[in-house]
Amino acid sequence: MKYKLYYWPSIQGRGEFVRLALEEAGADYVDVARRSGRGMGVPALERFLEDDKLTGAPYAPPFLKAGKLIIGQTANILLYLGPRHGLAPRNEAGRLWVNQLQLTIADFVTEVHDTHHPIAGALYYRQQKTKARRRTKYFRAERMPKFLGYFEQVLSGTGRRKRYMAGNTLSYADLSVFQLIAGLRYAFPKTMKRLEPDYPGLTGLHDRIAARPNIAAYLASKRRIPFNQYGIFRHYPELDG
Amino acid sequence: MKYKLYYWPSIQGRGEFVRLALEEAGADYVDVARRSGRGMGVPALERFLEDDKLTGAPYAPPFLKAGKLIIGQTANILLYLGPRHGLAPRNEAGRLWVNQLQLTIADFVTEVHDTHHPIAGALYYRQQKTKARRRTKYFRAERMPKFLGYFEQVLSGTGRRKRYMAGNTLSYADLSVFQLIAGLRYAFPKTMKRLEPDYPGLTGLHDRIAARPNIAAYLASKRRIPFNQYGIFRHYPELDG
Repeated sequence: MKYKLYYWPSIQGRGEFVRLALEEAGADYVDVARRSGRGMGVPALERFLEDDKLTGAPYAPPFLKAGKLIIGQTANILLYLGPRHGLAPRNEAGRLWVNQLQLTIADFVTEVHDTHHPIAGALYYRQQKTKARRRTKYFRAERMPKFLGYFEQVLSGTGRRKRYMAGNTLSYADLSVFQLIAGLRYAFPKTMKRLEPDYPGLTGLHDRIAARPNIAAYLASKRRIPFNQYGIFRHYPELDG
Repeated sequence: MKYKLYYWPSIQGRGEFVRLALEEAGADYVDVARRSGRGMGVPALERFLEDDKLTGAPYAPPFLKAGKLIIGQTANILLYLGPRHGLAPRNEAGRLWVNQLQLTIADFVTEVHDTHHPIAGALYYRQQKTKARRRTKYFRAERMPKFLGYFEQVLSGTGRRKRYMAGNTLSYADLSVFQLIAGLRYAFPKTMKRLEPDYPGLTGLHDRIAARPNIAAYLASKRRIPFNQYGIFRHYPELDG
């Protein structure tokens, strides 16, 4: 089955967690809004959001078309893809655990976004810069260590470090941890340099994921949009302490 | 099976979405932190969060103990409970759809919380009151209508109003919509009075859920914690426009 991924064409954003899963799986997919031609481009994406007669419409991108199914919400898309592409454990307990991790990553990602947009997504960063500075101070001091410490504990809590977040099996949560570490390094290089030594499990996992053949090929390709100042992870030096 | 629900004892918060599902299902459960005695109370909850050797520990409450399983993240708990208690469609497409709706509700709930805490959860409301006022102005003008309009469209988009969010079958997403409407009415009574006429589907659904025997009994019981100024939905008149 050829999947159609609908996400904004110029940012990694939340869509990147889906792109990484599709790429690792070697799945047949088209990144609709990044293509031109009939049924492609941003208008094809917006058609779903603007059609107020459509039942089952997603609230926002990313969403995935898989046959007749239209699946929205990043964690929900991954919940669908995971077991179909060997990116989730086979048993229910394992799948719930990976979904739980993905939802915790999603919470963290929302907080990352809100460091530069604490007041409103509808305003520019420069219109909420002072508040962004205040929010990010707490984010760096309290939220980053709390989330990263939690994920590190998941990997290393039992004393014997696990290979992956769900134990011995690679899952989409590992791909998402890779994206988290990569994004935080881009957005907060100084802070990460200071914090990283406390999270050897996570940085090791980041490196192992980056070295996987399909992921390495993806990262080196033009399909990987570079980090930039429009996505979730943005580098504003004044927010990096 | 007797479930153990772990959530803060003095607020509805995110735990309330789980409580409503357990109550509607007539499930056998204990709200651990609200009980006293051996293995009960807040210490029993905190034990899970503080044990840094525990694998599979949740990041935060609510979490549910179901036999040996410990399930964290509200939407994930509901994903587990739904099909076991007739609160989710039987087929995969339907379950993904209900999960998608629940995740969109969760996004909205996070934005509701951040109206009174735009800078940091670690600070008091009075320490971020000016920013809260600014954030809530955008929340009322843009975010509330966008989210409510979306959920109304889910119910009524095809012209023929559906009975429930997933069509003809009650699901936990309907219970969550009830909680959303109830919470927004508590937090923003003036704004809701103005907006509600635009969302007859949602207010009708709220009323039908409130009238269900198990839910009505729950709402009238002491198990339902009243809304208050410590939860997600808080009533600060200065934020209500």
